[in-house]
Amino acid sequence: MSDFYGENFMLPTLAARKLYHDYAKEMPIFDYHNHLPIQEIYEDKRYDTITELWLNDDHYKWRAMRVAGIPEQYITGSASALDKFKMWGRTVEKLIGCPLYYWTHLELNRYFGIAEPLTEGSAESIFHRANEMLKTPEYSARALLRRMNVRALCTTDDPADDLALHLKLKGEDMGFKVLPAFRPDSALNIAAQDFASYMERLGRSAGIAVTSMDSLFQALNACMNRFERAGCLLSDHGFVDFGYTLDHSQAQTALERALSGQPVSEAQALSYKSALLDFLAGEYTRRNWGMQIHTGAMRNTNSRGRRETGFVNGYDSVGAATDPHQLAVFFNQLYEHHMLPNTVLYSLNPVDNPMLATMAVNFCDGEIPGKVQLGSGWWFNDTVRGIERQLDEAIENGLLGSFVGMLTDSRSFTAFTRHEFFRRILCRKLGQLIEDGEYPAEQMDAVGRMVQDICFNNAARFFHLQ
Amino acid sequence: MSDFYGENFMLPTLAARKLYHDYAKEMPIFDYHNHLPIQEIYEDKRYDTITELWLNDDHYKWRAMRVAGIPEQYITGSASALDKFKMWGRTVEKLIGCPLYYWTHLELNRYFGIAEPLTEGSAESIFHRANEMLKTPEYSARALLRRMNVRALCTTDDPADDLALHLKLKGEDMGFKVLPAFRPDSALNIAAQDFASYMERLGRSAGIAVTSMDSLFQALNACMNRFERAGCLLSDHGFVDFGYTLDHSQAQTALERALSGQPVSEAQALSYKSALLDFLAGEYTRRNWGMQIHTGAMRNTNSRGRRETGFVNGYDSVGAATDPHQLAVFFNQLYEHHMLPNTVLYSLNPVDNPMLATMAVNFCDGEIPGKVQLGSGWWFNDTVRGIERQLDEAIENGLLGSFVGMLTDSRSFTAFTRHEFFRRILCRKLGQLIEDGEYPAEQMDAVGRMVQDICFNNAARFFHLQ
Amino acid sequence: MSDFYGENFMLPTLAARKLYHDYAKEMPIFDYHNHLPIQEIYEDKRYDTITELWLNDDHYKWRAMRVAGIPEQYITGSASALDKFKMWGRTVEKLIGCPLYYWTHLELNRYFGIAEPLTEGSAESIFHRANEMLKTPEYSARALLRRMNVRALCTTDDPADDLALHLKLKGEDMGFKVLPAFRPDSALNIAAQDFASYMERLGRSAGIAVTSMDSLFQALNACMNRFERAGCLLSDHGFVDFGYTLDHSQAQTALERALSGQPVSEAQALSYKSALLDFLAGEYTRRNWGMQIHTGAMRNTNSRGRRETGFVNGYDSVGAATDPHQLAVFFNQLYEHHMLPNTVLYSLNPVDNPMLATMAVNFCDGEIPGKVQLGSGWWFNDTVRGIERQLDEAIENGLLGSFVGMLTDSRSFTAFTRHEFFRRILCRKLGQLIEDGEYPAEQMDAVGRMVQDICFNNAARFFHLQ
Repeated sequence: MSDFYGENFMLPTLAARKLYHDYAKEMPIFDYHNHLPIQEIYEDKRYDTITELWLNDDHYKWRAMRVAGIPEQYITGSASALDKFKMWGRTVEKLIGCPLYYWTHLELNRYFGIAEPLTEGSAESIFHRANEMLKTPEYSARALLRRMNVRALCTTDDPADDLALHLKLKGEDMGFKVLPAFRPDSALNIAAQDFASYMERLGRSAGIAVTSMDSLFQALNACMNRFERAGCLLSDHGFVDFGYTLDHSQAQTALERALSGQPVSEAQALSYKSALLDFLAGEYTRRNWGMQIHTGAMRNTNSRGRRETGFVNGYDSVGAATDPHQLAVFFNQLYEHHMLPNTVLYSLNPVDNPMLATMAVNFCDGEIPGKVQLGSGWWFNDTVRGIERQLDEAIENGLLGSFVGMLTDSRSFTAFTRHEFFRRILCRKLGQLIEDGEYPAEQMDAVGRMVQDICFNNAARFFHLQ
Repeated sequence: MSDFYGENFMLPTLAARKLYHDYAKEMPIFDYHNHLPIQEIYEDKRYDTITELWLNDDHYKWRAMRVAGIPEQYITGSASALDKFKMWGRTVEKLIGCPLYYWTHLELNRYFGIAEPLTEGSAESIFHRANEMLKTPEYSARALLRRMNVRALCTTDDPADDLALHLKLKGEDMGFKVLPAFRPDSALNIAAQDFASYMERLGRSAGIAVTSMDSLFQALNACMNRFERAGCLLSDHGFVDFGYTLDHSQAQTALERALSGQPVSEAQALSYKSALLDFLAGEYTRRNWGMQIHTGAMRNTNSRGRRETGFVNGYDSVGAATDPHQLAVFFNQLYEHHMLPNTVLYSLNPVDNPMLATMAVNFCDGEIPGKVQLGSGWWFNDTVRGIERQLDEAIENGLLGSFVGMLTDSRSFTAFTRHEFFRRILCRKLGQLIEDGEYPAEQMDAVGRMVQDICFNNAARFFHLQ
Repeated sequence: MSDFYGENFMLPTLAARKLYHDYAKEMPIFDYHNHLPIQEIYEDKRYDTITELWLNDDHYKWRAMRVAGIPEQYITGSASALDKFKMWGRTVEKLIGCPLYYWTHLELNRYFGIAEPLTEGSAESIFHRANEMLKTPEYSARALLRRMNVRALCTTDDPADDLALHLKLKGEDMGFKVLPAFRPDSALNIAAQDFASYMERLGRSAGIAVTSMDSLFQALNACMNRFERAGCLLSDHGFVDFGYTLDHSQAQTALERALSGQPVSEAQALSYKSALLDFLAGEYTRRNWGMQIHTGAMRNTNSRGRRETGFVNGYDSVGAATDPHQLAVFFNQLYEHHMLPNTVLYSLNPVDNPMLATMAVNFCDGEIPGKVQLGSGWWFNDTVRGIERQLDEAIENGLLGSFVGMLTDSRSFTAFTRHEFFRRILCRKLGQLIEDGEYPAEQMDAVGRMVQDICFNNAARFFHLQ
């Protein structure tokens, strides 16, 4: 069992092993999109139990436990940390092939040195051993990040956020950088119940009351200035169904109605969002920020579940295919007016992969490799097959060599072995092509350098990491 | 040739072989969804020729023969049984990789002991040998089912059906159970030409005239009571495009208009169907029945073909992607009101797999493993790749261990080797993961028990088979 | 390196090698759909440099170079032929797994005998060696086609085209036939800005002024007669989103409005297109022409790119999924009235594959094998995975043996190694099924004949090549 998830895990060919060990393995990590809580980095948090570290906030694991028929008490409820961990062990046993299986054992192995399968039977022993280690300084939030060779990471932040902790950490030498990322979803979601109160909060945060599109733009600009001071390199947008129109004539009316609590029609809302997207993209371009677009996610579909557990997460799923026509009009508008930022596209519905990969290329030019590109397998696609699907699409309809690579998208400080998981799958795929004679073995080094670019260099260049 | 489709067919690894031979092979079959004719079970029918058994009612084979350019005379027409079988042999030769190729040879091998490829050349000899065997009692309808270790099966029945034969067979010891399943499509299809006359038939069958939503519910309740007496465990619904609305205000109007032959608008029809679905789901929950939802099938697309052959089947194809928003609203409504039955979701369009698999998990809780789940590859997805796609989705975004497994969905008494086909593919996939070191070989037994659950135990528990 | 892309390239099994070398390799090519410029065949053009041959008109390569961050000057701009070729070499190095990588090296190898990887480093030497060869008569347009054993090819032509060169070449013995194909997109695109002027051109070409649906049909008929004289065997249609309605009542109004420069509503346009499609399909049937339908492509999405480069191509991408309902109504209408031609369906969005493959079978009958069928992986699907996806679909839901096989769809005279590429992938897949015992090795010859049919015979029969 000593080699369980060991050195050559997922690396069946000699070429794959060479690519991984000689090129990928030692590359640092730039985790340009995640949801780590800045507070825990700031206070360099310690964790009492592996349950706290693993299960308290991980809706992926909650979902698996629910499917396994585990009572909610052991998931988000009041059961003891040990009992919850045992139930997780019972669930894991059945997760053959699931990303949670790989993640669980990579994390046990790489962070805790435990090369032993987690089962209901082994759970108690592993629980105690891991908890012992968690008591040591090597397991603080920052130490966990350093252990994985993280060079920089980007959290996900609301424009109204004061970034106080980011600004405090800016001068500190932690061995890695922590940067905010700008996610203005609340400013775009004009149909949300709390939109007016959010706008008030945004105005207060910026020192500019939002009463019109102009003042909204000014307020967001002030926020972006603050983000820039905190080192922000990129933005992020989430859409259920991406929509865009060139008709911005109703934006002001829409905003006024929403601020005064009047209903906003779908056409008005779309006009508003489109005007705002144009403004934001222009600003991102001017500031050399990247833009991320996430689409195709349905969120919070189960109202009783949400109410009874008290958690908003865990009831999300893959949405409909993205409309390519509106997306094309959006990019054309930005490209036409030289205000298209470096952009990464993600859809939760894998059916969009070919559409997004080919659409992206339409707006690439000599400015930078892969100026618009399909992002890494996201959320329910962050699986062996999902990662392979994205790589296949990048290989066949993009240009793999320009890919900005992996990110964790996670709330967990032990999620960084997912970069290793990704790198092994990447090297396995490229190694196979070499092994099969589809690429010359003599040019292994060119592929190795491409692997290194995908592991770190491309993202650093694409997002202007200093 | 003696090992053609033999012991280790489709089992390339030692782990796959162990899983299949030590765990899967001997498990009984609970075929919880098929279209077997109850009359043939009741009379324990004998078949004169393999043509009658194989070709008289199998639109899968008809389609393949049509693509192969075989004249209709040899398909649904007046040609002799031998000539039809020869034409089937000519077609089969070309079906490399097609499920019909696998099914044909598994059936020849397992039912008739003929381990020889069917070709146009071998057809006549096979025809005569098989027909000889069909004369013996070992080839009656019931004997064919017993031979495959069928423990129970569910036919597909209309609410208005009197279930006379099911009720007669209930007490009989045939070595397996035959249960009806409740498929109220005709009650939902308010836009159908013959809706009013169907409602009259339904009313007669229930002893309650249908004049309103209330009396419709009473009539359906009476039918469900009859189904329950006959041992019914589950229902089934077929949709071209699944639709649902929370607005049930037009249901009564829609029904009245349809009963009196007036046109019903799309909005009225949707209101009616949604109200009826809610009622039915509530009843299924109360009765501990499972619910199956089949969506994404386009039926009877070729009117001349249908007219000329006299058969309604054989002109069906994969429809559009399913709208996830309406599906989510439906499930949320049921879950909110504690009237969500154990549910299996099938779409004929494989693009829906990720959406359905993740949607299902949103409504799982501690009640039972996989309370809502993606069903087995259906119809045009009941292929090697289709089965693998479904398993991959269950593995990565559901929980394979809770999967209720295979069903034949067939009208044929020799279709039960499809369970073996499925089991081999299942064991091949899991065996490969073990072989590749992605799951510990030491825990083979845990995987083996999971395989047994998927083969039989899960479905028996999920649908409350006694 | 001598075996780089050599004899057994992409043929890992003995069965695959046997199928390729004994059956596929020597089959002639009938390239029934491409965009070769007839002028260059007519004048038997010579090429000064490999840059002219490869890069001057190939938007696939342009796109890859743009993603690689190469300045436009080296793509469609004013850089020297050598510098452009070097930049192509720099790009190719990174294209591991991309069809462009395979095509580049197959073309270098098979046309120029250069079995050496193209890189930025090797580009200059390869450039000069290739250019030397291009000076010889063996590298004229016609010689390049003869070298690949092309028996016949179909260009893509507008109905208004006078086909002067096709008619001149008709009598000439070039070692292969060059036939026109009828692509009336401009006659269907009633919403296009230049529709009225196109109609004038069409009328002039036919000698019949277009003023009504009747005169339009007469004019198109005259054009089709001309195409028939030039040997035309098939038509071709391109749609962004396929649409069809049975209501043709607004066709005449739509045409009149468009001819007089008035706006045409979407419903009017659809009525017009549907009426015209019916007419055309009827004519194709009467003339024994095949019909090709290409759907799901978004074209010219980047207006600044188009303006600045001066090229319309290179800004196209995968569109939305095709609506199966309208497609089914269209085919049903044609089949009902016995005016359904032999038809090949292509969608740029691979999500349509299962829908198209199963839809096609609904309209097959004994007339000819695979009367309606899913075509070869098109454009962004002409990749290893795209070809495999199409083959899988044909294998599992069509009938591989009736498949009309590969076409280049290319503007390039060296694109014909794509047939070899396709054949190797085909043989690899079928060889694997034999190797795995899923088809009897004893029947290798049946599979070999099927391979030969797919390589050439099926297309020749399907399109009535003399």
